[in-house]
Amino acid sequence: MKIDGKEYRTIWFDIQSESVKIIDQTKLPHQFIIKDLKNIKEAISAIKNMEVRGAPLIGGTAAYGIVLAVKENNDLNFIKKSSEDLIQSRPTAINLKWAVDRMMKKLSNINKNEYLNMALKEAKDICDEDEMFCKNIGLNGLKIIEKIYNKKKNTINILTHCNAGWLATINWGTATSPIYHAHKKGIPVHVWVDETRPRNQGANLTSYELNEEGIANTIIADNTGGILMQRGDVDMCIVGTDRTLSTGDVCNKIGTYLKALAAHDNNVPFYVALPSSTIDWDIKNSKEIPIEERDSKELSHIEGMDENNKIKKILIYPKKSKILNLAFDVTPAKYVTGLITEKGICEASNQALKKMFK
Amino acid sequence: MKIDGKEYRTIWFDIQSESVKIIDQTKLPHQFIIKDLKNIKEAISAIKNMEVRGAPLIGGTAAYGIVLAVKENNDLNFIKKSSEDLIQSRPTAINLKWAVDRMMKKLSNINKNEYLNMALKEAKDICDEDEMFCKNIGLNGLKIIEKIYNKKKNTINILTHCNAGWLATINWGTATSPIYHAHKKGIPVHVWVDETRPRNQGANLTSYELNEEGIANTIIADNTGGILMQRGDVDMCIVGTDRTLSTGDVCNKIGTYLKALAAHDNNVPFYVALPSSTIDWDIKNSKEIPIEERDSKELSHIEGMDENNKIKKILIYPKKSKILNLAFDVTPAKYVTGLITEKGICEASNQALKKMFK
Repeated sequence: MKIDGKEYRTIWFDIQSESVKIIDQTKLPHQFIIKDLKNIKEAISAIKNMEVRGAPLIGGTAAYGIVLAVKENNDLNFIKKSSEDLIQSRPTAINLKWAVDRMMKKLSNINKNEYLNMALKEAKDICDEDEMFCKNIGLNGLKIIEKIYNKKKNTINILTHCNAGWLATINWGTATSPIYHAHKKGIPVHVWVDETRPRNQGANLTSYELNEEGIANTIIADNTGGILMQRGDVDMCIVGTDRTLSTGDVCNKIGTYLKALAAHDNNVPFYVALPSSTIDWDIKNSKEIPIEERDSKELSHIEGMDENNKIKKILIYPKKSKILNLAFDVTPAKYVTGLITEKGICEASNQALKKMFK
Repeated sequence: MKIDGKEYRTIWFDIQSESVKIIDQTKLPHQFIIKDLKNIKEAISAIKNMEVRGAPLIGGTAAYGIVLAVKENNDLNFIKKSSEDLIQSRPTAINLKWAVDRMMKKLSNINKNEYLNMALKEAKDICDEDEMFCKNIGLNGLKIIEKIYNKKKNTINILTHCNAGWLATINWGTATSPIYHAHKKGIPVHVWVDETRPRNQGANLTSYELNEEGIANTIIADNTGGILMQRGDVDMCIVGTDRTLSTGDVCNKIGTYLKALAAHDNNVPFYVALPSSTIDWDIKNSKEIPIEERDSKELSHIEGMDENNKIKKILIYPKKSKILNLAFDVTPAKYVTGLITEKGICEASNQALKKMFK
């Protein structure tokens, strides 16, 4: 999608510099910086520090991480160790392990001298597939928006949480893809963008990317969605997911559950957009999902631009206070109107998911 | 309550300087500054700029605002105009109008030369009464905490939103008063403090005042309460209210409704603490409550301390983004377990409220 009028993907391999290029998302929205990842360590730290984030893009970066590991040292033990380190870099996103496993499988029965070409091809395939999945999610989700629009005949207000935008994927995004497709089709859409504390990916990334694509949007505090739904100012919610259980329970950015409750209370349809790679077929009980606890400084400190256009980090909490920073929560399937996948829309249930994907 | 070991109220008249003293709450938690209000304009701007905030303290400040107006010019027309300006300074808090009306009534049938003494006495009475109300709210709420404690025999985890602490009242607070009373009685309590975007009064004020009183507390993003309740880590919620309808619907800081939904979904008792002065007996339909829309800069900009201990304000949003900043929402009575008032605990219903107060 576009930044400053120019088309980008979120990650690509640059043959000339022999490095993986990413958009450093920790610098957005204040600075647009393309960053080089030259080795496996830099790939891991890009994931850990959330220079790349969002389940699909984490998967893509992990895939290219294996490419970088191979380039660094094509000893299988080193690559295996690298793959384990990659998997440890973020505990909740299911695509991470999925992408690493897929890469390692491809390397398992070939000669060492084929490693690099195979890794490069497979990483690119993973990214191309993700882009295609996101595009299809968009085309499927578009049908829901069209249906609401045909009834309402007026701007469709869509609430989203966090960033499941193209910046969280390779392109198009998951939750945003139906929105982009609706916009391209001339349906008037307006997006309520949850700020999404503590890292403000809604404000920093979703609003930013919608602005760059010329889509009307308004940032709101995470606290605000409830009253907007009570007032009838939200026609539908679409969010992404970091891990979808085969039961239909959805693990996504902390706060998603609260919006799902409000949607349920106000008869607002609540959709989750996902590529099937985020489905976890193993865990049956959502209590078993490891919920990442992140550094408390993500809450107590915040970065922004001062009056001299300098990036500054400031402390916003009392010095003595204790903080808990949980990154995800789980929305029970019963609050999910439907799952928008690359294959179509289905109920958030084991039966429907199995029917569509197994 | 205590700050740095010394006892304070949030507002008082200082005879020596002939001014009203307040704690400038926009400077907390980084700086503790006592500010002088010398005239009606300064009183209004203190309310508007939220140097004082919280329904009961706004009421107290409005009462002392009338004192300052009388001191400035004891012409009844001037005082009346001042009272109208005061009422306009914040639209949602019901106590504001209540306190101003009570002050004006006292001045209506006496001689001009009695105005100042009468106003001073009445403003002090309003504040003393509020302190007594808050104390009684605490003693009544204490019974609920004791009941839970007698069953659990372990630390009681209480979630609160925004600041309905002593800094929002004259002393004790509303939502915090039961907590302070439990703590004084030796019941182990731990408070989950919602950060409360956009102004972060939970982090800036509630956590700050609990720290100063030595009560264990942990700041969480507003998005976090849901998963904590799912996990069983919240024994009860207590919040304040800016306006309680006679139907039991509760208008409070934006985001309260979302926590009430989560509490309901997880069988966590959800209490609202209030002095009866915040009951609105007129409005019957919560849709008629004026919901204040505040400056969008409260979201896009944030103040804190930089690495040199200097207070800095920074921009945290994309420059182009639109923002909506609604300050309150309404929690329907059906999600409120009970109202903790100065007279006792009652159901959030017209019948129960009438029985207790009419």
